[in-house]
Amino acid sequence: MQAVTFQAPGEVRVQEKPDPEPAAAGDAVVRVTAAGVCGSDLHILHGRHPVEEGFTIGHEFTGEVVAVADGVTRVKPGDRVTGSFVTACGNCFFCARGEFHHCVDQRIFGHGKISGDLQGAQADRVLVPNADMTLRPVPDGLDDDVALFAGDVMNTGVFAVRSAQVAPGDSVAILGMGPVGLCAVQAARHAGARTVLAVDAVEDRLEMARTFGAIPVHLTEQDPRAEVKRHTEGRGTDVGIEAVGTPAALDLAIRLTRRAGRLAVIGVHGKPCEVHMGLLWNKSLTVTTGLSNVLAHFDDVLALLAAGELDPSPLVQRHLPLSQAQEAYAAYDRREALKIVLTPGG
Amino acid sequence: MQAVTFQAPGEVRVQEKPDPEPAAAGDAVVRVTAAGVCGSDLHILHGRHPVEEGFTIGHEFTGEVVAVADGVTRVKPGDRVTGSFVTACGNCFFCARGEFHHCVDQRIFGHGKISGDLQGAQADRVLVPNADMTLRPVPDGLDDDVALFAGDVMNTGVFAVRSAQVAPGDSVAILGMGPVGLCAVQAARHAGARTVLAVDAVEDRLEMARTFGAIPVHLTEQDPRAEVKRHTEGRGTDVGIEAVGTPAALDLAIRLTRRAGRLAVIGVHGKPCEVHMGLLWNKSLTVTTGLSNVLAHFDDVLALLAAGELDPSPLVQRHLPLSQAQEAYAAYDRREALKIVLTPGG
Amino acid sequence: MQAVTFQAPGEVRVQEKPDPEPAAAGDAVVRVTAAGVCGSDLHILHGRHPVEEGFTIGHEFTGEVVAVADGVTRVKPGDRVTGSFVTACGNCFFCARGEFHHCVDQRIFGHGKISGDLQGAQADRVLVPNADMTLRPVPDGLDDDVALFAGDVMNTGVFAVRSAQVAPGDSVAILGMGPVGLCAVQAARHAGARTVLAVDAVEDRLEMARTFGAIPVHLTEQDPRAEVKRHTEGRGTDVGIEAVGTPAALDLAIRLTRRAGRLAVIGVHGKPCEVHMGLLWNKSLTVTTGLSNVLAHFDDVLALLAAGELDPSPLVQRHLPLSQAQEAYAAYDRREALKIVLTPGG
Amino acid sequence: MQAVTFQAPGEVRVQEKPDPEPAAAGDAVVRVTAAGVCGSDLHILHGRHPVEEGFTIGHEFTGEVVAVADGVTRVKPGDRVTGSFVTACGNCFFCARGEFHHCVDQRIFGHGKISGDLQGAQADRVLVPNADMTLRPVPDGLDDDVALFAGDVMNTGVFAVRSAQVAPGDSVAILGMGPVGLCAVQAARHAGARTVLAVDAVEDRLEMARTFGAIPVHLTEQDPRAEVKRHTEGRGTDVGIEAVGTPAALDLAIRLTRRAGRLAVIGVHGKPCEVHMGLLWNKSLTVTTGLSNVLAHFDDVLALLAAGELDPSPLVQRHLPLSQAQEAYAAYDRREALKIVLTPGG
Repeated sequence: MQAVTFQAPGEVRVQEKPDPEPAAAGDAVVRVTAAGVCGSDLHILHGRHPVEEGFTIGHEFTGEVVAVADGVTRVKPGDRVTGSFVTACGNCFFCARGEFHHCVDQRIFGHGKISGDLQGAQADRVLVPNADMTLRPVPDGLDDDVALFAGDVMNTGVFAVRSAQVAPGDSVAILGMGPVGLCAVQAARHAGARTVLAVDAVEDRLEMARTFGAIPVHLTEQDPRAEVKRHTEGRGTDVGIEAVGTPAALDLAIRLTRRAGRLAVIGVHGKPCEVHMGLLWNKSLTVTTGLSNVLAHFDDVLALLAAGELDPSPLVQRHLPLSQAQEAYAAYDRREALKIVLTPGG
Repeated sequence: MQAVTFQAPGEVRVQEKPDPEPAAAGDAVVRVTAAGVCGSDLHILHGRHPVEEGFTIGHEFTGEVVAVADGVTRVKPGDRVTGSFVTACGNCFFCARGEFHHCVDQRIFGHGKISGDLQGAQADRVLVPNADMTLRPVPDGLDDDVALFAGDVMNTGVFAVRSAQVAPGDSVAILGMGPVGLCAVQAARHAGARTVLAVDAVEDRLEMARTFGAIPVHLTEQDPRAEVKRHTEGRGTDVGIEAVGTPAALDLAIRLTRRAGRLAVIGVHGKPCEVHMGLLWNKSLTVTTGLSNVLAHFDDVLALLAAGELDPSPLVQRHLPLSQAQEAYAAYDRREALKIVLTPGG
Repeated sequence: MQAVTFQAPGEVRVQEKPDPEPAAAGDAVVRVTAAGVCGSDLHILHGRHPVEEGFTIGHEFTGEVVAVADGVTRVKPGDRVTGSFVTACGNCFFCARGEFHHCVDQRIFGHGKISGDLQGAQADRVLVPNADMTLRPVPDGLDDDVALFAGDVMNTGVFAVRSAQVAPGDSVAILGMGPVGLCAVQAARHAGARTVLAVDAVEDRLEMARTFGAIPVHLTEQDPRAEVKRHTEGRGTDVGIEAVGTPAALDLAIRLTRRAGRLAVIGVHGKPCEVHMGLLWNKSLTVTTGLSNVLAHFDDVLALLAAGELDPSPLVQRHLPLSQAQEAYAAYDRREALKIVLTPGG
Repeated sequence: MQAVTFQAPGEVRVQEKPDPEPAAAGDAVVRVTAAGVCGSDLHILHGRHPVEEGFTIGHEFTGEVVAVADGVTRVKPGDRVTGSFVTACGNCFFCARGEFHHCVDQRIFGHGKISGDLQGAQADRVLVPNADMTLRPVPDGLDDDVALFAGDVMNTGVFAVRSAQVAPGDSVAILGMGPVGLCAVQAARHAGARTVLAVDAVEDRLEMARTFGAIPVHLTEQDPRAEVKRHTEGRGTDVGIEAVGTPAALDLAIRLTRRAGRLAVIGVHGKPCEVHMGLLWNKSLTVTTGLSNVLAHFDDVLALLAAGELDPSPLVQRHLPLSQAQEAYAAYDRREALKIVLTPGG
């Protein structure tokens, strides 16, 4: 089969590999029909996340089950399915508490040995461990490339909104209109947020946020603090969502959120940085952090996509055959699209 | 009457002042029978919190109502009462949400013009605004100097435990065995925490924590991270409570708390500092911050003190007449007692 | 002034009364510009809720403040305001817990001596106790007759949805498409419910539910249990809302809700009745009951009405001058409108 | 091996059966060292719960793993373990939401074909499906007959307390001092309940409740409503727990619980009955119902037993060899002990 592999920083390649087979109880093999290219794939491309040479990458996928091992009961060959980008055992201390995102046996597709040594999904076929948890049947009528948002990007947007306990009537400031931030706009509006302020510096993204029901706020051409005050009787928003992952974005998010408010930090932070603890403390903010608990929300997000209540399809701005993965990565690296979907077997 | 006043950094004095009278609707005047000296009074003593020369200080008190203005319905002259260190209006955006600690008309006793210009309680008498909210009758049999923990120090310990959602069976690491940390030990045990690890570098305080049901961990003579791992199957505690207010304590608290755990930061932070956001984010911690929401928990804490279920009386290690306030401040500044109670009219 | 008064079962009358004046601290007098006729007014009309002869009735109102007593700080003469149908003291055991609907000093407008002896709002002017809590300024641009839903009918719909913890993606069955049930449809959809099934036997009401985003289910011409199963993969809905108040409706609500689901009973129950405890227990339902906690949600509901996110205006199917109150009651009793608004001074 | 089997209403017998072997992936076989006799076993004895002739009964057990099938990773032969009385798949709609007690593949040990056709644990050996979820290693130092409370009776007591959201300082009325009610007393006290009123008509049980920290209230020789009022300033308790399962107990529980309080119904209800919906509704009670969600609390309860924070050992009032099971059932039926433990291999 064909698979997109990491070669060296800056270089991915499409190469031939043997088809995977079910190896352990619970495994399934999926013939991929759509595979997304995601922002975290760029971290791999540029060598910021270490992956072995020749390792298959990619972690967003929709496809058809072609084989299952013993013990798989919820999906069967022929089923159209989509996958979570991350696996869990279902039985450990964390899984028993519903904290699947901290499973002690966590494995992430296409992220190298350091993340569980699980080959990725930008390939004709992908081996899926613990298929009963990792896969979900795709409801009829739901597009392949929308479905793959359920196990990663839209899931993260919904997770942010739930972590920050967005309630009907709330005001919400969202920093960063990348794919996750845009999905968070939809999720916040869907959860009943009355006023969603979308902050970014890219006009196209702000315009898309506007069509999703947000009030666009330009990071540099407008004064985000003044705009937020204007829409919240001077108080700041009930909720802040930081979807960038920089110290500056975190600092601004703290400033935009009202006293006693909630702040969800879904932008990826990997290092120490200066945080205005004095301001945070004076405001009594409650801060939630970290990766989406994908498996806890997988069913719900998929159902909302199927019902059309959440619709990330405008983010899919380009389709390319899997064989042109190099071009796809180059275009995505130039930010020419919010989401690029690769089509295997094309 | 006599009142303890701030004079200059390092200097307090007992001076004569006119007796206060009810001025506005809702006011009461309380004849003070016990007034605590608190760690935040030392910030005033040393000029770190700005207070005007001659301003009466002190914010923990028990006493007897001697006069009430119109509109006071819950207390009457003759009632034995204790006070919250902070007032709230009961009607603003924040009060309507139960976030009394961010009332737009918040006033703090004895903290100068900057904090609502409300004269303090280390005096023979204290003027109490919005008495129906600020005061509570003291149940029969409850000591004056235990009662005054309900509106400040024990309240903060309970607040930390509730903010961090300590549940029966949880493991909890508490950093800093000052008065608030010690109260948090009691509150955590009372809420059913199975394993409470108390971290400090002062032997006497660790010993008191032990008598309150904690496992003492010496900050420098033991390895707190190793001790926590040993008691939590290597995971870290479900909950961390940081009751110090330094970057180092915060950093250690982040390290002691398990993945997907909760961290309550009740130590006072006033400035920006470096925070290991990468570690915090990787662990998906939920962090709560800020001052206790005293009025939300006032009834509960007072009832638990009256029932003897929480008992901070071992912290009261010295009583002095109000006239010897200078000596009391000097002793407290030398950390000779966890709590000193001043007795007016002595 | 003119006021609508109860005379005898089946008889209301418009009569002259002296204008009210502020009597106690906290009082305000409001010149009424719109007063709703509500289902519970019919209970009074028919003598099922006892009210004294000559007592002014009505409890939904919008108007203009014309006088305030001492201690009123949040509204002033000239303000356009709407009222809660019920008052609270803000200070008792229940108010301190945010359970304003069980205030020990609760008074309901226009419900006679038994409910706090507070004259009603279907009059040129109404005396409002504790005005700072009972009244809210009406945002500019919000119609009088929409605003009066904030303190009663829409508030109850939102309360049902919040009590039952409707979350984005949930399925919800609502029994009874009277004004409260229809408002619950809007509130459930606004809270992100994916599938809302509206059950009633009146075609017009089902049609209105459909325009609010529900799937209409005819109580007798369709099989509600089969319809619910069909839309929920055979499981029943995550949430049931019973907005009728009869044993039969409660029984059906139990049957329509899935195992481990939540059931909000907002239909008024006043007597013992047979309940299938075995079924309820086997399903592990969580059941919430009782009157809306109006004051806890007043600000939020008003803001959502002002933003147009909730819009009960289609329910207002008739306006009549206050002087024609008798005709209004007769028409409402014949169910000729979902909401009738009386206009004083006409 | 020897096994206790149902024969006919009123008759159980110890009979020889072949030793079980692991049959499916995930199975384990446990050599039983202690098996409890439970109140629900009496329902089987008397034919109220239908079980086939010759079916092995019993569902509370501690023992040693002697064999495991493929796919079992959390326990291994030689491990000392205790079991949940009920199994779950871990993967269905309900399990994914943490509602393990409504798993679509639920099986109950020793309850016949109707409850999943799973032979019981009052035997030398028991076959355990999905062993990774159903079994837990028993911490060193924890007695066999205390450990078996983790998967059933104490679990249910803790579940009641958690369902009713008992918080530190709460008052709680518990109706029925059978084994579950007594465990609920311990769990409520452990969760910080200040006042626990234990209602029953059996002196010995009331006395045991007293030693567990409750205030005993005799159902007929005292006036439970007056006693509750006396301890709650006339309001009723914050929480009611009904652990009887009769209409009369439910009615009393509704009356003892304060307005806006929470009521957990853990007494088993199997039929329709009259409920005072008017009173329930007027009080705005929140009612939770149903079987314990054992698997959600299994780890926590076991840890609390191991730490000695919960200690049901006083309930174990008799031990008998498995071969004397008939005598054990007769004695239990005569209520001669709160818990009888059978010892196989004796």
